[in-house]
Parts: sequence; C-alpha cells; structure tokens
Amino acid sequence: MRWKREGQDVTNWYLSTFSELLFEIESHLKSYLGGQPHIAPLFWEMVDYHFGWDRAGSSGDAPNLGGKRIRPLLLLLVARAVAGRSNHALPAALAIEMIHNFTLIHDDVMDESTERRHRTTLWKRWSTAQAINAGDGLYALGMGAMLRLRRHGVPADKTIAAMDLLLAACRATVEGQMLDISFEQRTDVTPDEYLTMIAGKSGALIEASARIGALLSSDDPAVIDAYGDFGLSLGLAFQIWDDYLGVWGEAARMGKSATSDIEGRKKSYPVLLAFQDAPADVQARLHSIYAQPEIAPADVEEVYDALEQVDAQQKTRDLIEVNFQRALAALDSADTDNESQRALRDLALFLVERAY
Amino acid sequence: MRWKREGQDVTNWYLSTFSELLFEIESHLKSYLGGQPHIAPLFWEMVDYHFGWDRAGSSGDAPNLGGKRIRPLLLLLVARAVAGRSNHALPAALAIEMIHNFTLIHDDVMDESTERRHRTTLWKRWSTAQAINAGDGLYALGMGAMLRLRRHGVPADKTIAAMDLLLAACRATVEGQMLDISFEQRTDVTPDEYLTMIAGKSGALIEASARIGALLSSDDPAVIDAYGDFGLSLGLAFQIWDDYLGVWGEAARMGKSATSDIEGRKKSYPVLLAFQDAPADVQARLHSIYAQPEIAPADVEEVYDALEQVDAQQKTRDLIEVNFQRALAALDSADTDNESQRALRDLALFLVERAY
Repeated sequence: MRWKREGQDVTNWYLSTFSELLFEIESHLKSYLGGQPHIAPLFWEMVDYHFGWDRAGSSGDAPNLGGKRIRPLLLLLVARAVAGRSNHALPAALAIEMIHNFTLIHDDVMDESTERRHRTTLWKRWSTAQAINAGDGLYALGMGAMLRLRRHGVPADKTIAAMDLLLAACRATVEGQMLDISFEQRTDVTPDEYLTMIAGKSGALIEASARIGALLSSDDPAVIDAYGDFGLSLGLAFQIWDDYLGVWGEAARMGKSATSDIEGRKKSYPVLLAFQDAPADVQARLHSIYAQPEIAPADVEEVYDALEQVDAQQKTRDLIEVNFQRALAALDSADTDNESQRALRDLALFLVERAY
Repeated sequence: MRWKREGQDVTNWYLSTFSELLFEIESHLKSYLGGQPHIAPLFWEMVDYHFGWDRAGSSGDAPNLGGKRIRPLLLLLVARAVAGRSNHALPAALAIEMIHNFTLIHDDVMDESTERRHRTTLWKRWSTAQAINAGDGLYALGMGAMLRLRRHGVPADKTIAAMDLLLAACRATVEGQMLDISFEQRTDVTPDEYLTMIAGKSGALIEASARIGALLSSDDPAVIDAYGDFGLSLGLAFQIWDDYLGVWGEAARMGKSATSDIEGRKKSYPVLLAFQDAPADVQARLHSIYAQPEIAPADVEEVYDALEQVDAQQKTRDLIEVNFQRALAALDSADTDNESQRALRDLALFLVERAY
C-alpha cells in the first residue's frame, strides 16, 4: 500500500497522534528481535536493514518509520478500546508486524521490486535465496512472539486461539498473493475475483489485527466479531482506495511516467470493471493494449476513456465508501465509547484519507 | 538427504517394519490438508503434486512414499516408547512433516534444483514466485496442525511448549540454510563452522521431532532431554553419513559423472578437512581447483589424493561413529524397554546404514 499524500502534515498527524504506541511497538520489536539467539549473523544484519535499524540516528527522538506499523497500532488500539489497556496484547502486535514484513520481503522477491521504503530491497542487495531465508526466519520469529502472550498474562487457550487466527490470516494472505500472481497471466479476471484476492492478500492481516486485539481483551463473541468486521472492511476500503489513487490520484494524473497503475499495466479494480463492462469493441481494444509489454501514451488515454465509459471512477469511489461505512458501522456496533475507540475512528478516516 | 541404497530390500524393510505408522501419517496428512478451506486452487494443486498425491494409484495398497516421512515416524515412535501410545502426538507429527516439506520447496528454489523424488520441482513446473508462496502456505498449515494437539487431549500449555520447540527448530533450520548458502561464496569455512551449519539445517528438525514426541508424552525433563539428544546426534550422524557417501559411496566411486560431491564441487565435511589440514601447497591447489566453474577428471583425482593425505575418510567415519554412539547412549539413558524403543534403535541403525 502506498503512503498517498507524502506531505509533512499527514505524517506529522499520524506520528503525533499515535506517538506513544508507535514508540512502544518500535522499542519492543527491536528488543524482542535483539534478544533472540543468533546462528547466522547475516540473518540479523538483514533484519536490521529491513526494519531500518541499521541507519545512523535511528535510535533518535522520532520513531523511525521503517514501515508505518499500522497493523500493530490497530491491534493495540482495539485492545485499549475494549479492555482499557494494551500491554497484554503487545506480543501479538509485534507478531503481526513481523508476519506482515515477512510477506513484504517475499513479495519483493516475487515482484522483483528493487526498492522499498526508498531503499534497495533485500533480494536485490543480498540475493533471492537469502531474501527467501530472511522472510522464512521472520515468519518463525513472528509466530514465536505470539507464544509470549502467556508471559503477558493471556491464558493458554486464548493464546492458542489467537495463534489460530493469525495462522488463518497467513494462509489467506499467501493464497491471495497466489491469486494475484496467477491473475497476471489471465485476461478474464472478474472484479469479484479481484475482491476475493485482495480480501486475502490485503484484508486478512488487517482483519486479524483488529480481531486478535479484541479476542485478547474480551470473551464476548459479538465484540470480537464487531472489531473483526471493522478490520476486514477497513482493509478492503484501504486497498481499493489504493487502487483508486493508482489511477486517479494526484501523482497518477500528473502524467509522471510510470507513476500510474495504467502505465504500470496493473489490472486493479477500476481496470477490471472496464474489462468486464465496456462494449465488446472497447473490451477487444483493452485486451490488445494489455497484451503489449509496454503501454504507449496514446493507449493510456484510451484506457482512461474506457474507464470513463463504464463510470469506473464513481463505481470505485462507491465501493470504497460502502466498505468504509461498513467499517464504521461495525466499529459502532461494538458499542464502546472511550478515547481509544475514537482514535480507531480517526485511524480509519486517516487510512482512506477522509476528513480527519 | 539421499536414500543411499536404492535397493528393494532397504525400502521393503522400512515399509514393512513401519507400515502401520506410515499409513497413519499419510492418511492423516492427506485428510488434514484436504479439510482446509481453499482460496487459491493452485495452492492445493501444488501441495497435492509435491506430496505425490496427484498420481494414479497413490491411494492404493502401498504407502505412497512421496518422501520418507522419517521425522513424523521418529516423533510417533518416541511418543509410543514413552507413553505407550501415539495418537495424542499425531498433529505434531503432521506439523513437522509439513514444515520439513516447506523447507524442501524453498530449498529447491534457492538451489535451483530441477528434480525432487524423480519429479520436476515446484518452481520449475510453476514458477519461482508460486513455489515461494506454496512453501509459505505449507509453513502456516504446519503450524496450524500443532494447534490441533488440543483436540487430541494435550494440555494448552504443553501445546504452546511444543510449538515453541518447533518454531526454534524452524529458525535454526533457516539460519543453517543461510550459513550453507553463504559458505558457497567462502573458501575459508572450517569443519567446525560446517558442523554448526548442519546442526541447524539438518539436525534441528530431527532433534525437534524426537524432543516433541517426548515432551508430549512425559513431564520428566530428563526423559525429554534424552530423546532430544538422541534426535540431534542421530541427525548429525545421518547428515555426515550423507556427506561420506557423497564422496566414498558406491555411486560416487563408480565414477558416474556428476554423481559424486567432488564433481559437484560440494564443500562437505571431508573436503573441508582437506582445506583445513592439508599441507600449504595442497591447500593452494584445492583453492584453485574449487575456484573453477567445473572440476576436470584429473582434478577430481587430485582432490581424492588430498583427502587421503589428511586421512579424511577415517576421520569422517569416526565423526559419524561418535555421533551415532552418542545417539544410542542418549536413547539408552531414557531407560525404557519396549517394542517402540527397540524400533527407535532399529530406525537409527537403518538411517546410518549400520547392521539392522
């Protein structure tokens, strides 16, 4: 997911609003990983690099945002909203952030991405093999963090239930990623199939963050479901908003080469709408445009025209809105009123860049 | 690890001696994986293929040895030796087999191996990206199987302790694999470093199999340690025996091209002994021989000469024997006498191909 508006205001709002929890996440993540037995020095070098901890000044005043830490933040805010505290849930927050990062490391290998967070990716700097290993190791470390819930007073059976949720989310994320890759070879992916894919690839871990935060803080299934539903709908809204900006965002419309998902030939939700709903002749043109290795500027305009013909911009906005409203309704259904609950609402508004 | 003597006698002995448990492992592995929710059909196709379940007749009379299932067998035999039964430990046995297979799938990507168990490897048949995903998914499924120990009557805290052991073994396996890959670029790896590497890469999961089998069946730390030590020493003996056969085994000495680890330029234990202990001029020759992309037949003979000069064959045999005797001593220290305990001894003898 992109950090849409790179502006200082946005970053400042996020950092200042959530600084306490962001500091807590960062320092515990570092000390958890630092406290593990080391066998292969390279593994730890790669982990430090990936999290941005190798940089000078990274232990300075500001949290070092080598990643936004949205998932652990969400988990801890839900715990606070439900239980009034979050220390008991901290190991799960760290676990989810590590699992998320393992998927990023492997995704970069699969997508052959050369840059992440303005730095060379692990596979590019070391090798594909060692990046696969680094991801595998972080996977185990993430799961291992979950087991520490016991030391934070979480009962053993609840710890196991939380692990079960996290593992199911891992599987959904991996299978979503498989679908995403297999879609690249296909020209007949429907918008519905696409939504199934992102529910796994992008939604599952965000849903799990909120659901686990609630599970660790309440025994009421209705409360746990409310936050789980909130997380899933928010995750979907967030991802589709990402798709929206990739086509109609400021950077995409500025015409900067290769900044838009159209130039990048990404078959995201709006494009799939056109593939599905455009008149037959336009569909045929889309197929031949997307069969090319690169999309010429004139063709890019033709794709935008096709999107306009099927009203893709409004339909995409509507789908974001539906999911966003579902998220807020689920949040409200938890029937909680406190500072953390309001912070969750603010975080949701922030993630899809509504007024905040 | 190789299946050294491909002869029918060996396979028959293994299959007939352990048929009951091998059937149990295979059928439960299949039904566990088959009973999971499916998101990406490709994932399940790849899993079926990897385990050899896609082949006609695979549900026939003989267990379909798409893999030897040594680790789950070891785990269940230890459980039977200690507790007189093994059903309670079954989920852990399945978990370890899935984790082992996830490492194989990723190793094949890293090593660019095109064949496993006489079939095209996953990455070669589908793609690197999808093979990484398939491994990642199997990782989560393996961990998920561990959680099922609860349903088999294992207390929650013991389930968590078993997961902790398995996760530590995963990390050691991954870090061992990282060392192995980084060794390829180095010319100064010592035999001791090599042993650290195989203790992780090959030993950790075998140790975990035996240790978890005992942990799930006893509360006595001495018993758990005895079987854990047995597993680790056996794993080391097994791996060094593999190295031995790669250099002096029948296939290697038959002179078949590329069947020996010398022709394959593999810097296994015996070769590292020569790199360390040979006279300076011989070491220099070894360095220049191993710097070549391929090793010419005359050079192969020179490597064998260097091995003879440092008495590498006897030293390697000695190290196998030390570890093997350590394994048997650890097994005896558990002070158990029953059919399963004797089966464990037979399995150990079988794995390093001593008299059985």
